[in-house]
Amino acid sequence: MSELRRDPVGGRWIIIRNGEEVYTPDDYDRQDNAPRPTTASPFAYGREQFTPPEVDVIRPPDTRPNTPGWQVRVVSNKFPALKIEGNLDRRGLGLYDMSNGVGAHEVVIETPDPLKQMADMSAEELQQVLRMYQSRCISLAKDKRFKYIMVFKNFGVSAGTSIDHAHSQIIALPMVPKLVQEKLDGSREYFAFRGRNVYQDILQQEFEEEERIVAQNDHFLAFCPFVPRYSFECWILPKKSDSRFIQLSGEEQYHLARILKETLWRLKECLGNPAYNFYLHISPVNYEFEETFLWHVEIVPQLTRVAGFEWATGMYVVYTPPEQAAKYLRDVVYSEK
Amino acid sequence: MSELRRDPVGGRWIIIRNGEEVYTPDDYDRQDNAPRPTTASPFAYGREQFTPPEVDVIRPPDTRPNTPGWQVRVVSNKFPALKIEGNLDRRGLGLYDMSNGVGAHEVVIETPDPLKQMADMSAEELQQVLRMYQSRCISLAKDKRFKYIMVFKNFGVSAGTSIDHAHSQIIALPMVPKLVQEKLDGSREYFAFRGRNVYQDILQQEFEEEERIVAQNDHFLAFCPFVPRYSFECWILPKKSDSRFIQLSGEEQYHLARILKETLWRLKECLGNPAYNFYLHISPVNYEFEETFLWHVEIVPQLTRVAGFEWATGMYVVYTPPEQAAKYLRDVVYSEK
Repeated sequence: MSELRRDPVGGRWIIIRNGEEVYTPDDYDRQDNAPRPTTASPFAYGREQFTPPEVDVIRPPDTRPNTPGWQVRVVSNKFPALKIEGNLDRRGLGLYDMSNGVGAHEVVIETPDPLKQMADMSAEELQQVLRMYQSRCISLAKDKRFKYIMVFKNFGVSAGTSIDHAHSQIIALPMVPKLVQEKLDGSREYFAFRGRNVYQDILQQEFEEEERIVAQNDHFLAFCPFVPRYSFECWILPKKSDSRFIQLSGEEQYHLARILKETLWRLKECLGNPAYNFYLHISPVNYEFEETFLWHVEIVPQLTRVAGFEWATGMYVVYTPPEQAAKYLRDVVYSEK
Repeated sequence: MSELRRDPVGGRWIIIRNGEEVYTPDDYDRQDNAPRPTTASPFAYGREQFTPPEVDVIRPPDTRPNTPGWQVRVVSNKFPALKIEGNLDRRGLGLYDMSNGVGAHEVVIETPDPLKQMADMSAEELQQVLRMYQSRCISLAKDKRFKYIMVFKNFGVSAGTSIDHAHSQIIALPMVPKLVQEKLDGSREYFAFRGRNVYQDILQQEFEEEERIVAQNDHFLAFCPFVPRYSFECWILPKKSDSRFIQLSGEEQYHLARILKETLWRLKECLGNPAYNFYLHISPVNYEFEETFLWHVEIVPQLTRVAGFEWATGMYVVYTPPEQAAKYLRDVVYSEK
């Protein structure tokens, strides 16, 4: 019999298959999403003039902007969902509210190597990508028009990417999006009722039950959440309750890079390099530190097609219980070079 | 410049592309989803024994159950997300709530013809399908374990279907799903604040502005909503504010069949037979009639891939403003037989 579980933050119910209907990693369609060899990557060395100019970059001091030599490069999205110019001009129309589409939409080119995917980067390389995320969040947060910054990555065609070359995206929004607001509201309600941070309680329960843990180090825990939306979904939470993403020290960045790499690598080995998305769920910008919330990373492999039922109800069907998914992921042999 | 619009019921913001970035119907990838000729449809005449036995059916009185001759046939889903047997057994686990996966998951086989799609059915044929929806909703609502009944359809591979033969699905749930609850809560808040039904206000604004109307008849209005989630999304609303889906008269059913067929046909002709989902948003079962809510049909073509940004934020990017989408749909030449 399947099981219904309720997310204590957002209030969403999900359906977990159980018993004979559980999928093992081999039951999902395999789809190797390794970047395909190409000589035409738009993000490779020597093609810098074909992207918008870099807005942030890690490159040796003896190289010029928008020329080869960089390690991580941030440019504006050529086809942005929102544009940086203009003012919001909030207005009503009958019973509707609307405004202009003001925001920022940037692309983080994670490596000059068109064939390297994030799971195969060294922790040091991945740390540089995280440094760029942090740098962009700090910079965009200074623009008072923006209320939220979303960092995310689409890897593989089923996850919505159109370019193989490793990249992630940053969108600055003039409002807090609904799904984020729900997490904030749910966390605040939990705190108001119990006087405790819900993410700290989740960490506590994961440490006690152990079975959903995928990896950990001094600063972070990676686990399969009790109420996932997707099969093999993984979250990474900081262990310190007062952690803030934009204030992570170099050492913390390095530990986050290590555990993110390990988690992505375990997913890759376990499931045959599946498509995935990841999201950085941070507190809204221009807000005070929120003791009721704790930033985290969500990694969601795209193993099955989400369809009408999920869209209509918001209830997701999970084909591998997180307890079993975590075991499959732990069983992958992993050694940090 | 793109435009941000806010859904007055759910509070969701969406991004509408504007100006030069608007997609015409020809800018979307064409994907003809007509059922492919096959001699092996699991839902065809003569294969009744390969599905679970019929739980409801429209068939001549001189034919036996689970044999050919039927017009519309309802069977249990062979691979149900939820199962009918057992009790809920609600319980807690640390900070989580859970229960058994009790529910119903049925398949409505809309026609014995493996090649006929819903857009090509006659209004009379489609009315029989709606009659079955209504009959199942009434029957399932008698089971007091169920709090919500969702009728939906996945058409085409991008919409999540795995079987070409025309069919829709019905799921009875032991709780009201979150996305439905949000609509109910939003409608109640709107009513509490203004003393008016939000869907009546939406109808009123659509009649006044006219530009988003796709089709109408005595009982129903089909239009592209001001705040869609998907490009070319269409809604069908009853014109009477006290309409209830399970109490529709035969005449109202027929008018709903007519406008549903016309809308699906216009989408098919305009966009090259795209994949789509539709949902019947009805009030929860076992509830009193809700004067704050109004049931409706949502039809969402799957023209672009939804990816990381939408999943993370709940903000959708719409590539054709509904005002233009409605005009494209109206411009399709349509004549009822």
